[in-house]
Amino acid sequence: MAHVKIQYDVMDAFCMDVFQRFGFTKEESRIISDVLLLSDVYGIESHGAQRLVRYHKGIASGMIKVHAKPEIVFETPVSAVVDGHDGMGQLIGHFAMNLAIKKAKEIGMAIVTVRDSNHFGIAGYYAKMACDQGLIGMAFTNSEAIVVPTFGKKAMLGTNPIAISMPAEPYPFFFDASTSVVTRGKFEMYRKAEKPIPDCWGLDANGHPCTNAAEVLTNIDKKAGGGIMPLGGAEELTGSHKGYGYAMLCEIFCSILSMGLTSNHSIQNGKGGTCHGFIAIDPAAFGDAEAIKQHLSDFLTELRESPKADGKERIYTHGEKEILATADRMKNGLDVDVKTLAEMKDLSEYVGADFNSYFGDIYNG
Amino acid sequence: MAHVKIQYDVMDAFCMDVFQRFGFTKEESRIISDVLLLSDVYGIESHGAQRLVRYHKGIASGMIKVHAKPEIVFETPVSAVVDGHDGMGQLIGHFAMNLAIKKAKEIGMAIVTVRDSNHFGIAGYYAKMACDQGLIGMAFTNSEAIVVPTFGKKAMLGTNPIAISMPAEPYPFFFDASTSVVTRGKFEMYRKAEKPIPDCWGLDANGHPCTNAAEVLTNIDKKAGGGIMPLGGAEELTGSHKGYGYAMLCEIFCSILSMGLTSNHSIQNGKGGTCHGFIAIDPAAFGDAEAIKQHLSDFLTELRESPKADGKERIYTHGEKEILATADRMKNGLDVDVKTLAEMKDLSEYVGADFNSYFGDIYNG
Repeated sequence: MAHVKIQYDVMDAFCMDVFQRFGFTKEESRIISDVLLLSDVYGIESHGAQRLVRYHKGIASGMIKVHAKPEIVFETPVSAVVDGHDGMGQLIGHFAMNLAIKKAKEIGMAIVTVRDSNHFGIAGYYAKMACDQGLIGMAFTNSEAIVVPTFGKKAMLGTNPIAISMPAEPYPFFFDASTSVVTRGKFEMYRKAEKPIPDCWGLDANGHPCTNAAEVLTNIDKKAGGGIMPLGGAEELTGSHKGYGYAMLCEIFCSILSMGLTSNHSIQNGKGGTCHGFIAIDPAAFGDAEAIKQHLSDFLTELRESPKADGKERIYTHGEKEILATADRMKNGLDVDVKTLAEMKDLSEYVGADFNSYFGDIYNG
Repeated sequence: MAHVKIQYDVMDAFCMDVFQRFGFTKEESRIISDVLLLSDVYGIESHGAQRLVRYHKGIASGMIKVHAKPEIVFETPVSAVVDGHDGMGQLIGHFAMNLAIKKAKEIGMAIVTVRDSNHFGIAGYYAKMACDQGLIGMAFTNSEAIVVPTFGKKAMLGTNPIAISMPAEPYPFFFDASTSVVTRGKFEMYRKAEKPIPDCWGLDANGHPCTNAAEVLTNIDKKAGGGIMPLGGAEELTGSHKGYGYAMLCEIFCSILSMGLTSNHSIQNGKGGTCHGFIAIDPAAFGDAEAIKQHLSDFLTELRESPKADGKERIYTHGEKEILATADRMKNGLDVDVKTLAEMKDLSEYVGADFNSYFGDIYNG
């Protein structure tokens, strides 16, 4: 994969332009672009600008409804259920997490669960929203079923990420990870590189471990059986039932409490139906928020400074790699696959954006 | 390991006798015995009656204070911080989860965090307390540091279990698992059997994978380095940073919010300092609790009925194995190691209980 560097401001301006051409308001486009580009800034290319084309397809097919507005359909001082009415996932997620934050600031904590949404980007964006306001933030989402439960051979669960962020110095704790051993993107990288995948990642159509990334991906696309293993692999000996359990925890806060579609029923027959969950907790509900923040900071420092394994130079705490990636990307630009640029050029023609005014000096393909 | 079968009622009567001789009231002994025996009934021998002797040692050494009462030191309608004052973990846990349940019934959800407690048995007991009352229950605890963060070689984290239970038919969802790949008990079983452990379980003193259970356990006891890997193993390729992340999530709800001891500082110099976290959520805060319960039940049924991998007969949902174990144990008796019985005989002499009146017909060793 050949990559080029694109300055943040250039990519941001392009995204703003395109999302407005999709029919979103300037304010809405601001939110969607922010979610997408945080992913690129954090080095998670799979959930960044490269998804522009997929969002466009979702809009064109009617799966994502541009003018849908999220609606609170049930509410208490500590909770809410939001119906996304099949709108854009980022707008629904932003609305729902802001609602959780507002309630948490008033009463100490809140959970907002969402049904009938669509792909919302990285879960961590929403956890970070709460953290940026001094709260603990958690975000969950289900997704298309591509993960196989322990001892199964049919994908029944999404990659179902759980994200949590909490204020700390010198940078927040920020953990955002799928509950599967890896995400689909890793399989795609190995397929492109024609490298065998580790035998604890994927299952073939019969439920046996499979080291052929292309075979697993093809079967997923055809719904022919097999898929990605939960975190912990395929056997209880390596903790498969635990990854499967965390996927279920995610499902409870997303699809179960919202009465929405579980992963095995989502993204079918032109309907997304993706469900999310958001939790905001005010540390001040447990005493001195500053002291609690310092307590976490101290523990994170102890972890980073604890003895390293032979051959390892550094112990990371969660969120540290994202801080390093941000410093790099804001200085050197975002990493963008030339294939993504080519897709963006086609997309520009389709929606009437002036591709060359943004990327003409970089890409002439 | 030779095992004998002990009827539930016999073991329960013995535990009630012994805990009262330790100095606990009848009511307190009832709670402690219930927590311990639920573990045996669920087939988790490591956290059941076999710990009687360890609790006795904790009391004798002064680490566990028999007459300490848990105290609410900070409180809001949705939250509380409890100081355990170094009392018995089960009593503190029971008190704190009941507090979370009471608040959740009043306002929809609550989090109670606990510091200065001791080992509280299985986390799942407390999650089940909430579930038995129609709520979602979650329980967390930190513990002695025996788990090594990704790329480290010093144990900094406890096995830090996360438990969640939620009402469903025909049986509740019940997930209770350490965030490490396995617990210490598994290492002890392999050491006894003189079998090599899988290479994704333990680290030697230098942070290299190690298949010798005895070596890892000896190093843990001597604090000589190494320990148990997080769920996901030792490398990011297999998701090590995710297990490490879930351990941190656990630590946040236990030691961080309570301003208590993080795992790396607990159980040192005669002080336990174990921290717990409890969450109770009323599904009615999200609408029709019965409909939500049915929605979860339907999904669990779909999971169980989904296609099995070649060579696997059954897909379990979390909590199903515990239901099967309960049926077996209540009919056939609890599985008790004869070594545990021998320890219980010594303990009986020490505290003045009549061992033979309980177990004389089974054990004469």
